[in-house]
Amino acid sequence: MTNCVLCKDKLKPEEGQLIWRGDDCRVILVNDSDLPGFCRVIWNHHDAEMTDLSYGERDHIMTLVFAVEEAIRHVMHPDKVNIAALGNMVPHIHWHIIPRFKDDPFFPGSVWSQRIQETGPTTLDTRRKKAQELPAAIKAAIANLS
Amino acid sequence: MTNCVLCKDKLKPEEGQLIWRGDDCRVILVNDSDLPGFCRVIWNHHDAEMTDLSYGERDHIMTLVFAVEEAIRHVMHPDKVNIAALGNMVPHIHWHIIPRFKDDPFFPGSVWSQRIQETGPTTLDTRRKKAQELPAAIKAAIANLS
Repeated sequence: MTNCVLCKDKLKPEEGQLIWRGDDCRVILVNDSDLPGFCRVIWNHHDAEMTDLSYGERDHIMTLVFAVEEAIRHVMHPDKVNIAALGNMVPHIHWHIIPRFKDDPFFPGSVWSQRIQETGPTTLDTRRKKAQELPAAIKAAIANLS
Repeated sequence: MTNCVLCKDKLKPEEGQLIWRGDDCRVILVNDSDLPGFCRVIWNHHDAEMTDLSYGERDHIMTLVFAVEEAIRHVMHPDKVNIAALGNMVPHIHWHIIPRFKDDPFFPGSVWSQRIQETGPTTLDTRRKKAQELPAAIKAAIANLS
C-alpha cells in the first residue's frame, strides 16, 4: 500500500532503531523519551488484522512478540509489560511491547491514557541506559528461537 | 491470590456475561455501553505476564483470542479490532478484544484515550443488538477449534 507508513518502511533515526529484520517481521526499539525500552514488532506485509494471517503466520509473529517481552523483562525489570495491537491510525499489523513502571507518566493507565506523573530524572536516565542493552538481548532471544 | 478480582471469578451481571469457560481460560462479553461487542479472554490462573506461561499455554490463550477476534469480525463488522494485554491495575493475564468503529467515542485513539465524539443512538442500538449474537458465534468458533 503506497500510503502506508509501515509499508514504506523508512525508519527515521528520531523514531527509533531497527533491531532485527526477517522476511515477514521486523523489530524496532522505539525512541520514546518517557518509556525507555518500548519496542514494536511489525509485520512486513500490508495486513490489518491478526486473523487476516494464516495460523502459522500468527504463531510466527506472536513468538517474536513474546521473545521481545522476555528480553524486555530480563533487561529492564519492569513492574508490568503491556502488549497491544491497535492499528486504528495505521491499519497494518504492529505489536507494541512496552515495559511499564509504577512511576512512569501514565501508570497505572495505558500509555495512551492521560499523563499523571513524571518519572524522576535519575531513574529515567538509568532506564534509558539500560534500554541500550535491549538490541543485543532481543537479537539473542530471537536467535535462540531457531 | 485472595485479593485478585480475576482470581475471585465472580462476574457481576452488570459487568458482563460469561460466554465460555475451559480449564485454563474463560471468555467474557463485557458490558460496555460505548463499545458493544467488547470481549475479554481471561487466564484462569494467577500469572501476570504472557512469558510466565509455557509455550503451549501461550498458544492456547492466543488461539482463543484469535477465535474471539474472528467471531467479532464476523458478527460486528468493525472498522478495526484492537487486542491488548495490559494488566497494570489487575496483574492477572487478561486480553481485551475490542471491535472499533470510526464513530465510536475514542476512535482513532485507544479505548483508554480521551473521549472525542459520540456514536449516534440508532447506530449504537443496532450494534448492541448485533452484539447479542456474539456469545453463540464465539462458542461456535471455539467449538470449531477442537
